[in-house]
Order: sequence, then structure tokens, then C-alpha cells
Amino acid sequence: MPIITLEGPQVANLNTRRTFIRELTDAAVKAYGLPQEKIIVILHENSREQVGVAGELLADRD
Amino acid sequence: MPIITLEGPQVANLNTRRTFIRELTDAAVKAYGLPQEKIIVILHENSREQVGVAGELLADRD
Amino acid sequence: MPIITLEGPQVANLNTRRTFIRELTDAAVKAYGLPQEKIIVILHENSREQVGVAGELLADRD
Amino acid sequence: MPIITLEGPQVANLNTRRTFIRELTDAAVKAYGLPQEKIIVILHENSREQVGVAGELLADRD
Amino acid sequence: MPIITLEGPQVANLNTRRTFIRELTDAAVKAYGLPQEKIIVILHENSREQVGVAGELLADRD
Amino acid sequence: MPIITLEGPQVANLNTRRTFIRELTDAAVKAYGLPQEKIIVILHENSREQVGVAGELLADRD
Repeated sequence: MPIITLEGPQVANLNTRRTFIRELTDAAVKAYGLPQEKIIVILHENSREQVGVAGELLADRD
Repeated sequence: MPIITLEGPQVANLNTRRTFIRELTDAAVKAYGLPQEKIIVILHENSREQVGVAGELLADRD
Repeated sequence: MPIITLEGPQVANLNTRRTFIRELTDAAVKAYGLPQEKIIVILHENSREQVGVAGELLADRD
Repeated sequence: MPIITLEGPQVANLNTRRTFIRELTDAAVKAYGLPQEKIIVILHENSREQVGVAGELLADRD
Repeated sequence: MPIITLEGPQVANLNTRRTFIRELTDAAVKAYGLPQEKIIVILHENSREQVGVAGELLADRD
Repeated sequence: MPIITLEGPQVANLNTRRTFIRELTDAAVKAYGLPQEKIIVILHENSREQVGVAGELLADRD
């Protein structure tokens, strides 16, 4: 049942996404000693209009 | 104030969504003995490119 | 993989908790047509010092 | 590292969003005595088909 | 229904908590033009053994 | 700003926790090409009375 949720910017492409999910899953398998079938990963990708850092929208920062 | 958040795949249609929200709400009303006006449900529907199970993207699984 | 997360006050006792998890799970099984083995429920119970409604701590309200 | 996540309806426009992020950040800076660079805000805006209150979809309520 | 969830370190004391909840609520009232009764704030305070920054536990950093 | 949140059972000990945070962070650094200072990990460890799988409390399962 371990669930790993990412809140981040867009991930570059489908292959990056595949590797990312694989590595997050492997980290949880190792930490818990559970079979990989138990591990769920959810990637929430946010636009630069949805995120603020230091009081500023990312869209306004750079 | 109880808040029920779902992270799941797409829900089939608007009627399924209505019944789902009704039943989740009823479960919380019963568990807490609170009026239904207090219960909030949020449905986060995720695409098959956003979710991994067993280290694989759902989009790659079937 | 549907995951139902509750943010709420303390649930009264273990039996209430059992019924609550059962009913939330059944609602998801019905909405998605998935086997119940796929449904995960997480209950986050919060103290009255952790929650605010209408700008006030619940602990200060009643 | 404090992270403030909003689950709400759509925010009206970009300027409202800027002010909102600024004020949420300032509240966290004051509460923790941390520099604003440490504060992250994420705005999750939900459609009226994704949210239920009192057992009803917001889309059905008004 | 807007819900503001904080994930942060421990908040210093009850008064800081009260002010924090008041200011987060006020920011949401202003952004949405909703009455304050609609705004919910949840403070999740995490220990230094639960949080990592830059690949290190906060408990190991300082 | 990428934030990785885990909802899982208790992690065995502090060293497991250190390795887990390191590996989750490294996965995000690689996926985004961001410096590790930007990556935040939060471990929410849940008791067996807080989690249900297949409609049953984990505490009742084994």
C-alpha cells in the first residue's frame, strides 16, 4: 500500500516518466521489503501558474 | 469538515460520479454523526500516464 | 489503485472505523467496477488544535 | 520547507492568484520565522464536476 | 469548500497557530469572495525525522 | 520545488529512513535535472488502525 505522490513541474517526456516511476518504486521496495506490486506512484504535474515559491508565481520568476 | 479525497482513474460518467459522491458522503455522515452539509468530497481523476503500479506506468500495462 | 484519503476528526472507535472503511471501499468498488483488493483507504485523524474553520481553531469553537 | 496546498474552485485571474500566493506565503513566514524562499504554495483548482458538498456535485447545486 | 493544508514543522504555540489559521483563512476569503465559514485549514506538523531536504533528514542537518 | 510525499506503514529505523529519503531525492534530481536542494520529501507513516485494504483494516488482516 505505500503510495508515493509527487507534486512537481511537468516531467519532460514519457521515458523520463517511466524511469522516474521505476526508481521511486525501487526505493520503496527496498525501504519496506514489500513486493513491487504493492507500490503506487502518482505524478501530479503542475503548471507554472499553479505554483508559488518565495511569494511569487513560478510563471513570474523566470 | 471531514474531507474525502479520491485519487483514482477517470470516473465513467456524471451519473456514476453523483452516486459515488453520495455514497462517500453517507459513509462519513454515519461514521461521524455529522450533518451532510459538513462533508466535502474531492475527486482527483488521473490519466494512465500519471500513475505507476509495480514500477510501471498504467499506460504501459494493458 | 483508487486511494481514498480522509482528513477528519477522530473516529469514535475501532468498530466505527471498520464500518467506515468498508463503506468507503464499497462505494469505490461500485464506481469503478474494480475488485475490492485494489481499493486503499487512509484515515488521517486530526486533533482540534490542528484544524481551523471560519478562521478559528476547532479547539476554540466549542 | 513549509508547503501550503490549496484545494479550491478556480481562482478568478492571474492577479488574484498573485495576491493569494503572496498572502499565504506571508502568513507562513510570520508563523515560522523562516525566510520566504522556504515557502512553497500549490494551487489545485478543481472543476465543479470534481467536488461534492452535502452529497451533491457542485455542478448540480446552483 | 476551499481547503488549505499545511505541511510544515511544528508551529511554536497555540497563539501562533491561531494567528496563522486566521491569516490563511483571510487570504482565501479575499481570493474567492466567499464567506469565511466556507474555509477550512488543516495544519499537518511533521517531526524532523519525517522530512528530508536535499536528500538529508532535517534531523541530521542542524 | 518538487515534493515527494509518502503514505505508508512505519519505516523500520532511522537508517532505512535516511537511505529512503536519499533515493527518492536522487530519482527526482534525475527526472527534473534540478539541484538536490530543491527536492523535499515528506514521510507520513500510518498505523495499522488507520489504513484499509480490500475493505479491511490492516490491523485486522494479519
